[in-house]
Amino acid sequence: MTTHDLTDVPAAPSLLAYAHERTEPVLREAVGALQPELRRVCGYHFGWTRPDGSPTYGVTPGPYPHAALALHAAGAGEAERDGGLPDASTAAALPGAAAVELVHNWAALHDDVMDGEALRRGRSAVWAVYGTGWAVLAGDALLGAATRCLLLSGDPGGTRGEGAGGAREEDAGEARAVVLRLLTRTTSRLISGRSAELALRRRAPEGISVEEYAAVAAARTSSLLECALAGGALLGGADERVVEALTRAGHHLGIAVQAARDIEDLWSGTGLSGRPVMSGLREGGPSLPLIAALRAGNPAARTLAESLGGGPACPPPPDELADLIENAGGRAAAHEISSWQLSEAFTQLDKAELPSASHAALRALFRHTVTRA
Amino acid sequence: MTTHDLTDVPAAPSLLAYAHERTEPVLREAVGALQPELRRVCGYHFGWTRPDGSPTYGVTPGPYPHAALALHAAGAGEAERDGGLPDASTAAALPGAAAVELVHNWAALHDDVMDGEALRRGRSAVWAVYGTGWAVLAGDALLGAATRCLLLSGDPGGTRGEGAGGAREEDAGEARAVVLRLLTRTTSRLISGRSAELALRRRAPEGISVEEYAAVAAARTSSLLECALAGGALLGGADERVVEALTRAGHHLGIAVQAARDIEDLWSGTGLSGRPVMSGLREGGPSLPLIAALRAGNPAARTLAESLGGGPACPPPPDELADLIENAGGRAAAHEISSWQLSEAFTQLDKAELPSASHAALRALFRHTVTRA
Repeated sequence: MTTHDLTDVPAAPSLLAYAHERTEPVLREAVGALQPELRRVCGYHFGWTRPDGSPTYGVTPGPYPHAALALHAAGAGEAERDGGLPDASTAAALPGAAAVELVHNWAALHDDVMDGEALRRGRSAVWAVYGTGWAVLAGDALLGAATRCLLLSGDPGGTRGEGAGGAREEDAGEARAVVLRLLTRTTSRLISGRSAELALRRRAPEGISVEEYAAVAAARTSSLLECALAGGALLGGADERVVEALTRAGHHLGIAVQAARDIEDLWSGTGLSGRPVMSGLREGGPSLPLIAALRAGNPAARTLAESLGGGPACPPPPDELADLIENAGGRAAAHEISSWQLSEAFTQLDKAELPSASHAALRALFRHTVTRA
Repeated sequence: MTTHDLTDVPAAPSLLAYAHERTEPVLREAVGALQPELRRVCGYHFGWTRPDGSPTYGVTPGPYPHAALALHAAGAGEAERDGGLPDASTAAALPGAAAVELVHNWAALHDDVMDGEALRRGRSAVWAVYGTGWAVLAGDALLGAATRCLLLSGDPGGTRGEGAGGAREEDAGEARAVVLRLLTRTTSRLISGRSAELALRRRAPEGISVEEYAAVAAARTSSLLECALAGGALLGGADERVVEALTRAGHHLGIAVQAARDIEDLWSGTGLSGRPVMSGLREGGPSLPLIAALRAGNPAARTLAESLGGGPACPPPPDELADLIENAGGRAAAHEISSWQLSEAFTQLDKAELPSASHAALRALFRHTVTRA
């Protein structure tokens, strides 16, 4: 058959499980190549081991959402297939999928140091267990490992680049070089975005516009999603038009995700991020519901602004703040922005005109990434 | 003329000044491309600005010794020239020279965070001025900038790679790709070496052998010197035999430098590193004079071992410790090792059979790097 009923598409959890199964061996190999002490620190960070290095049987390690996007985007370059997941192109995209996850984890390790954030995915952050020095070094090590995934996987004797959906090994090497440039631009955007965010934190939230928020969200969250989607597609042999459409999809997806996380931070219990509720606001990071509420121009917005008069060092109690933001319409506005950005991401995904299996898989992953559903 | 009288060779300070003049614009351009806050932090780190971002007229910025080695090694690929410095090959090697300096400064920023070392080149370290978060981020930014120097300098429209000593642009692009792989392996060695050093610090110095010390020194200090020499030579068009000889020279040079720094740390005032005397020992890092003294097997060595009986948390006073180490022969042994490693570096440099101008320049730089003379 050449068309697919959407009901045939595996649900996001099984798509994530597939990506996990394929990516984890590459990540374990990359971490296994590190010096013993670093191997232990990184193994703990990925949830594979306890602080003393013993295995964590029974602990479910975090998903690899960026790798899942990359692997399913790799199906973009394939001809229409007979159902199932894009196994042929997966092999070609695997170095890129692993590299994007490694970059994500470099950022996570260093972010937690910068924020003094003691929890990561419900466990103690690396710096809180091993100290700041090891967290900095482990982050550096994972960033280096990401580069090596793409630089060295095509070396003579390497096997990971083989079976690249009919593409010759030379083409595969060229694609990896292009993706390495993309990854380098992405780490640069992540760093700039982080710097811009730190600068934004020093400003009063009343003066921050939704556009400024979106620019930071794009650099901090969209950049890696764009890289996962475009990188996967490039390694799968997709053409430029597809890569561009997926890049735009990743841009909107990132803003949708960031808005959804900000809502979670204020109104749900501990999110999947494992960070305590309100941690973003406590650190003074820009929160979309707060920004939107302050700009609502209604009486509740004025009450909210007055309650923040004590400055970031003296915020109202969390529950009270959340209520004030909700009354001013900040929760609804953030939800609206998240939904709208997700629908824009779907529109761009449609424009990529992917084979239906890849299209349906990415659609399911997009929705899951934003709504956790 | 085709031979050079060694007396014609500029002294190391003028070789360093030449490298400084050529490299600094590339470094300033790389830092200038960063987000404004990061630009300020990195500008301060390089000594170009004060903490508030105003220029530091009258402050002499640090030299770029790695860049100097890279630029003069680039002359390796040239035919014998009529005196002077290898200007033609300098243009080809410049992206590599800048990249190696950027990697060195990434390591410096993160090392100071890890060690809680508040001084760098006689000024407050970045983390002490702007906080740990900015120091971590600035280091990440410089590492990214290093990769970009080599990845992007050959892009269409770029001019930096032109004039590459007669080599075609395609060859120059290929050489930069090879140097990028080398740089990636080098950052990986730096990280492993750092990890191994942190592990060594937890052990009693009595149990550390000179070989273990040398392995850490090779990873921490030789790796970047090897990369500078081999990278410069590769970009200058040198053949494999030359690259290998220069790599071996860099290996020995790094151990000689590290041994000399350890001696400086104990017996001179504040060294050029700007770190207070004894900082290495206070941090519990392995010091060659101490290791050699403890293994001397003489009565003074036993007195030294007894004085360290209180453990790293309770060392003898600095002056007393230095005297005990000297009495046991640790200073003389470290000096002997440093001299021997420098002469090995010269031997390997001779084997590279470089054009005489490059040979003489590198010889002068080797000696200066170790002895500061």
